[in-house]
Amino acid sequence: MNFPPKIVANAIEEISKLPGIGKKTALRLVLHLLKQQPQATHQLAQALLDLREEVKYCGTCHIISDTTECTCRTINRDLTTICVVQDTPDVMAIENTAQYKGLYHVLGGVISPIEGIGPEDLKIESLFNRIKNSSPQIEEVILALNSTMEGDTTAFYITKRLKEMQVEVSSIARGIPIGGELEFADEVTLGRSILTRTRYE
Amino acid sequence: MNFPPKIVANAIEEISKLPGIGKKTALRLVLHLLKQQPQATHQLAQALLDLREEVKYCGTCHIISDTTECTCRTINRDLTTICVVQDTPDVMAIENTAQYKGLYHVLGGVISPIEGIGPEDLKIESLFNRIKNSSPQIEEVILALNSTMEGDTTAFYITKRLKEMQVEVSSIARGIPIGGELEFADEVTLGRSILTRTRYE
Repeated sequence: MNFPPKIVANAIEEISKLPGIGKKTALRLVLHLLKQQPQATHQLAQALLDLREEVKYCGTCHIISDTTECTCRTINRDLTTICVVQDTPDVMAIENTAQYKGLYHVLGGVISPIEGIGPEDLKIESLFNRIKNSSPQIEEVILALNSTMEGDTTAFYITKRLKEMQVEVSSIARGIPIGGELEFADEVTLGRSILTRTRYE
Repeated sequence: MNFPPKIVANAIEEISKLPGIGKKTALRLVLHLLKQQPQATHQLAQALLDLREEVKYCGTCHIISDTTECTCRTINRDLTTICVVQDTPDVMAIENTAQYKGLYHVLGGVISPIEGIGPEDLKIESLFNRIKNSSPQIEEVILALNSTMEGDTTAFYITKRLKEMQVEVSSIARGIPIGGELEFADEVTLGRSILTRTRYE
């Protein structure tokens, strides 16, 4: 029996190239699309093509954008603070908190010697140039990188360079999540949360 | 800040219409595609369009196919046995066991009064016609439906009708999975596995 047929096998193959989607999930998605109106599949395919053809990156902060102009320089934002993040979802996560009104800088990754990613592969030099040429002057750089070996290495590298440039550098607070229980926290986080405790004022 | 930009939001919207994919996963997939060569996205979109345009269903057994001719009637298959399944993935699962060499019949769903799916919405009448007009005559129908309320209802309905047609009907065995531990099995399955025990010969 010639099963699955070639076009189905091909669609499964292409879909399962996406991260986190295996052959079984791909088959489920294929069957879902086949049960919908053809219009649904056309819209999906067109959205993917538009995405790939028309997406641009802001030339200043490297956020995904529909123009190469910086869209983060809008009114009511604090132009003296830059928040450095690894990738675009981090910007979305921080924007959703509505607690930050400064600028962003997307590195596009973190330094990872194992994967062969050095500072020159990321938008780190661009961050330094941006700070040098900024008007008004940048007063603080907030590092909001993931708390992994690679994230810490990147933070260390950036901090060292920024200190030479006499810009204040801070990191987002590490500690017990709100709603989290002390009993289940790991020792490193709990230990750090005691060392970097905040004083009631 | 205008974020995420419209084309990205549109792609996320379309991708998250797929079952089991939320907005966060969709964003992750979008970022993955943007990091790949444009070619990768084009191949994916084309595979989806080809799938939707060119896929056909076998007119006899209703398996997904690239022709409307029945492709399951190939050499070395037992033409006197039909295995009835709910949907195409079930055919793939059974084919992967290499334990079955008969024909298939895909119902395209199961009877579900809650969702308003009756026997007339499924390929059940088509199964009866197929058995009536079959040459060589069908000797056995194996029901390989899921062991849910809806699956059991469908099995009951088909069995009742097939008994009138004097065809032998069987169901796949229910019991403790191979490698499964008795201690963790539910009472219904374990009870049934005792009632329908197989004799050593």
